[in-house]
Formats: sequence, C-alpha cells, structure tokens
Amino acid sequence: MEENKRPLILVSNDDGAEWPGIRALTRIARTMGDVVVVAPTQHQSGKSSAITIINPLRSTLVEKHHDLIKYAVHGTPVDCVKIAMNALLDGRKPDLILSGINHGPNMGLSTTYSGTVGVVLEGAIHHIPSVAFSIDDNNPKGSLLYCLPYVEKMIKQVLEKGLPDGVCLNVNFPKGAIKGIKATTTAMGYWTAEYDHRVDPAGRDYYWLQGEYVSEDPNDDTTDHYWLQRGYATATPCHVDMTEHKALAHVANLVDF
Amino acid sequence: MEENKRPLILVSNDDGAEWPGIRALTRIARTMGDVVVVAPTQHQSGKSSAITIINPLRSTLVEKHHDLIKYAVHGTPVDCVKIAMNALLDGRKPDLILSGINHGPNMGLSTTYSGTVGVVLEGAIHHIPSVAFSIDDNNPKGSLLYCLPYVEKMIKQVLEKGLPDGVCLNVNFPKGAIKGIKATTTAMGYWTAEYDHRVDPAGRDYYWLQGEYVSEDPNDDTTDHYWLQRGYATATPCHVDMTEHKALAHVANLVDF
Repeated sequence: MEENKRPLILVSNDDGAEWPGIRALTRIARTMGDVVVVAPTQHQSGKSSAITIINPLRSTLVEKHHDLIKYAVHGTPVDCVKIAMNALLDGRKPDLILSGINHGPNMGLSTTYSGTVGVVLEGAIHHIPSVAFSIDDNNPKGSLLYCLPYVEKMIKQVLEKGLPDGVCLNVNFPKGAIKGIKATTTAMGYWTAEYDHRVDPAGRDYYWLQGEYVSEDPNDDTTDHYWLQRGYATATPCHVDMTEHKALAHVANLVDF
Repeated sequence: MEENKRPLILVSNDDGAEWPGIRALTRIARTMGDVVVVAPTQHQSGKSSAITIINPLRSTLVEKHHDLIKYAVHGTPVDCVKIAMNALLDGRKPDLILSGINHGPNMGLSTTYSGTVGVVLEGAIHHIPSVAFSIDDNNPKGSLLYCLPYVEKMIKQVLEKGLPDGVCLNVNFPKGAIKGIKATTTAMGYWTAEYDHRVDPAGRDYYWLQGEYVSEDPNDDTTDHYWLQRGYATATPCHVDMTEHKALAHVANLVDF
C-alpha cells in the first residue's frame, strides 16, 4: 500500500451485511482503513467456495460514506470477493480482506464447508492477506464482547506484518472469556448422525442436517478443536492447494498400467 | 469388503443422473460391482463442498434393479454423499465412491470450486477410496470414447490397490486422444477478466462469470495443467486438510501480542 494512505479493506461474510458480527467487524475495520463491505443478500451458510455459474450476478449499492461503501450481492461469499475484485472496486486491490464475524465455529472439518472461510481462501488466491473470524456460539446475537479486542489486534498485526503469499488465516473464538490465542492446525474429524429424518404431512420423507462433530485425534494439542474446547482463540493458516504430495508415489504406481 | 462379494460403488456428479458422463461411468461401475447412483436433481456446477443447511433435503427413488439403484437428491453434490451414507444406503459403507464424468476440466484452481471434486473430498472424509473424473471438453455431449478405457482401468486399480486413508483422486482427461496418464499436483493460478458486465432492458447491471485460466507456473512439469495441455490424462491426489503448516511459525509470531 502507498505511504500515508489509509489501507483499503474489503469485508464480507456468509449471511449478509445486517448481522451483528459483520457490523462489529466493519466498525473495527473502519478505524484502520477505508472499508468496502460486499456481502451476500441471503443466508449462505455452508456454501464453501461455491460460485454462481448458471445465473448472472447482480449487486446493489446499499450505503455510501466517504470511508465506507456497502454492496449487497445476490450470490455466494466467494462471488462477493470475485465481483468486488473485478467490478465493484474499480480496479483497486484491497490491502486486506476480512470475513465474519460468523456466529458459529468454523474449526476442524467445518473449514471445508464454510462460506466464511471461502471468502479468505479466495483472498489468498488473489494474493491478498485475508482473515476469517468466527465465534463458537450459534446464537446470531451472542455477545462479541470478549473477542472484539482480539479481532482488533489481529487486524493490526496482519496489516503490519502481512501473511505469507497464498496463505489466509482462519480465526475462531470460544464463547465467553478468552484465555489466549494459539497458532493451530485444522482438526480432522467427522460428524455423527448427520440427518434428522422426518415425514411431512403428505407422507414424504425429508432430512435436516444436524449431527455432532467428533475430532479424530482429540488429544492432538496442535489443533483448533483442541484449543477452542479449552477456552483459547485459534488462528489457523490455510491455503487453497489440496494436493496431498505424500500420496504422489502411490498414485504414480496406480497409473502405471 | 467381504470375500466373494461384489463391491458396493456409490456414484454421483455435479449436474444430475441423466447426463452422458454419469451414465457412462455408471455402466462401467456396474460391470465391477453393485451400484447406487445418488445425484443432484439440478445443475450444481461450481458448488464446491457446499452443503444444504437452511432447507431440508429430499430424495427420490428413480430406478431400481438388482444391481443398480438410482436416487435424485434436491441438494448439492456433497449433500448426495452425506445423505447416501446416512440414510439411503441403509448403513452399508461403499467400497468406492465415483464422481463424474464431468464435461469440463476440474484441474488447477477449478479443484477448489468443483462440485465433482466436492463429492470425492467428502468420500475421503468418510475414509472411502474416491475418484473424480472430468474431461477437458465443455460440450456436455462431447465424446468420451478415448477416456472410457482409462476410467475402467483406474477403477480397477483403485478397487485392487486402494488409496491412502483420507486421500481422494482428481482425474482429468484431455479432449480427444490420450497420450498417457500422469500422477500430478494441482496447478495454482488465477482467472483473468472474470466477469462479462451487461445491462438488462430495465437498465440494471448484471454480470456473467467467465474468464480464462492462467497457470502461475506454466513450466512446472509436475502439475495437472501442464500435462493436460499436452494431451495427457492426470491423476492428482487430494486431501481435505487445507492447513499450511509452513506458515505456523509466522502465525505464532502474529498472535504473540
């Protein structure tokens, strides 16, 4: 970013610009830079890195101040980043992309399904330092009191020290008081009893997603799951490349036919 | 799998059970095992690992033979795998999950956005050997003539030799004749000019996703992009964990406040 110029900060989330989490994040970001909020018009929970292909995208200018502009986009969280970068920011490249604050944790395997995290993976693709924030509290009005000072410090640190190229941060906060913050890995695991099976009044089956997350290695003290359960905030560096290099020899053997 | 028992093969894709790609894949799978097809009712291109949370899921039994059952699910590709594992397969665990054959390549960064790949990442989460197939031809009726023998061999190899736990395969075929098949990594890159901006008859802006993929390291001869461009099929091992371990020290420094 140029000297003496306020940083340009792009803010998004997975469920729209009017929720307390993104409003709090925007308030903090605004103290440190010029902010453009580009958020989905509708709930986009569980949208991962989905993009809109079959239909065109539309965006609406919602609010405009000298240091804050808000757009609503009829698409996914990743669509919001893409259309911001390609159209809404008039070619300016953000110095920082922020996502959240999501009510509901995005640690462990949830990282894969999370639209909140999708935003910052897309930021990493565009080589922009990007940080996602989530709190382990599914109540959309749950208190953010304890996590806001950490959000502010994290943003300052990332603006000052940057992130390695292609790496974004997935930050999770416990509900309530925070004992500290740890650099962590993503806990692998699975859900049990994933669907609640019901029958509608016409006798047709339907299924609600539910289930409980089980960490596959609950005693691994490097993971986000481990520390979040113990009252710590977690910051996990993520990248887009899902190649499992360790398996290349096995695959080379498989394709030797 | 038990001795002398035909393997149970779950087949899905990102755009529904009636397309030539999944029909061809199902025909091959059926020669090697009992097949359950669980595919979306609607086009799900670009759905990544998205899951349906806000609405309930419904499934419809479409076809039933002694060795082939087909369901249509009103959801995403990953929903199809989850509901199969949790409800439609009556608790049986598939020996193999197949996805595709998708018309349109899913190499490089497209891996991130691909619903076809989402299916096999979900398979990896469930510790089931899983293989996604795509062809570098966006015409949904484009010929599969050259790739089908490779599909058959790959399925046989994976049934026989398995995959490392937590690893799935992302296989891409060139359009037309195939020079061979390579074990590859995922090419990192970006799209240029991602949106086609238009104005509707009422004067409102809308944007179509488009763009051309640019590999960031076009001379890296380990990548799927490199070999696919040169007429080879590619098989890339992928896993779900997006943690960038190399960045942990940087993050530990960032959170030391």
